[in-house]
Amino acid sequence: MPNPTAAMLVIGDEILSGRTRDANMYHLAGALTKHGIDLREARVVSDDKDAIVSAIRALSASHDHVFTSGGIGPTHDDITADCVAAAFDVPIDVREDARALMAAHYGAQGAEFTAARLRMARIPDGATLIDNPVSIAPGFTLGNVHVMAGVPHIFEAMLASVLPTITGGTPLMSQSYRIDRGEGVVAEPLRDIAERYPDLSIGSYPFQKGGAYGTNIVIRGFDGAQIDAAMLELATLFPRD
Amino acid sequence: MPNPTAAMLVIGDEILSGRTRDANMYHLAGALTKHGIDLREARVVSDDKDAIVSAIRALSASHDHVFTSGGIGPTHDDITADCVAAAFDVPIDVREDARALMAAHYGAQGAEFTAARLRMARIPDGATLIDNPVSIAPGFTLGNVHVMAGVPHIFEAMLASVLPTITGGTPLMSQSYRIDRGEGVVAEPLRDIAERYPDLSIGSYPFQKGGAYGTNIVIRGFDGAQIDAAMLELATLFPRD
Repeated sequence: MPNPTAAMLVIGDEILSGRTRDANMYHLAGALTKHGIDLREARVVSDDKDAIVSAIRALSASHDHVFTSGGIGPTHDDITADCVAAAFDVPIDVREDARALMAAHYGAQGAEFTAARLRMARIPDGATLIDNPVSIAPGFTLGNVHVMAGVPHIFEAMLASVLPTITGGTPLMSQSYRIDRGEGVVAEPLRDIAERYPDLSIGSYPFQKGGAYGTNIVIRGFDGAQIDAAMLELATLFPRD
Repeated sequence: MPNPTAAMLVIGDEILSGRTRDANMYHLAGALTKHGIDLREARVVSDDKDAIVSAIRALSASHDHVFTSGGIGPTHDDITADCVAAAFDVPIDVREDARALMAAHYGAQGAEFTAARLRMARIPDGATLIDNPVSIAPGFTLGNVHVMAGVPHIFEAMLASVLPTITGGTPLMSQSYRIDRGEGVVAEPLRDIAERYPDLSIGSYPFQKGGAYGTNIVIRGFDGAQIDAAMLELATLFPRD
């Protein structure tokens, strides 16, 4: 059975304006690969209702899972929860269990449970909450869409909460090999190996160090013995100095 | 006149598998903002022909410019140029001026001009070359799609070559203000300011430092006087300690 597929949707003007460097894509990609879920696509859109709703609909229809990052805080530009509700055409309102969690948390902190913070308890009908051990205000799963915060350590905590609830597949394995020659020299023998191992994904990543060109080869696949065999061919063709 | 819009397309399995952290999105976003071009969306897709062709078609139709990153090297998994040709339904072949540039470069280096390297001189019909001062093999512009390398220092050099040829708009200006209080406390007065300045984009970015919550406010817009006025209101509401 093929592995489940996934897409990521990053929501935030701050990434597209160049103010902030997205950190969650790299984390999610690594975590999904380990869990046996194939991340096929990632999109970044701005805090714009139409853009978010249409991206959620498109990605949700074409992948087994969608993971979103950003736009679920207390401020006026946090519109992700409303957009997910709109994408699935379900109502959204303050949910009692989410509200109670947050009331207890702010109470214990002596912090005010403002109307703005109460917005974070607004959850689309039919969703399941995603635990947030860091700052309590929950994420949620609606259909195949998992909605998480953008702040990296909260995103990571929420992902750790939701990932064990998702059935994964075979973890993708990989091995890499550094060749101290340019990609242009490596390319032809590499293509030959790639043709003889159609089940493996063989990637080639050029680098430059101290003025010299080199190439990192990464072989990925689900069958460890095949990866070993291709790796051995590569090492025979380009032995270490 | 509104600013030109743009989308980015990052091509590469290595980003989606979590092997590599994309660096070009952050660089492009900052450069476009300075040039007065609004980056509206970014997508990351794998080295898959159908995925690349359909993303190029969708993004090219809905934005003034598309900037791509990755997949134009010499190896079998470098299929971006062919995909751009397919998306625009034009032929692609080795182009003499690109071949001559590269032959001179490899000749001067005493490096072999392999068949694999010659693949990098394959340019879709009707394209304009993008200068690559780093490793010579050029990028190209076809229609409104600007095709550049994925290696960050080559991407940056190609972008520096192509950006002056593109008419920009009004550079987006921004000011930021740090408030040492949580987003939940800041949200309501902020929403009030945002409603009174509909031409400004007011973003709120929570952070946590040494156990205390804080919020960075970023006000963006094209009218400096309006940004100053909104900033003054914010500083009056939340004076520095």
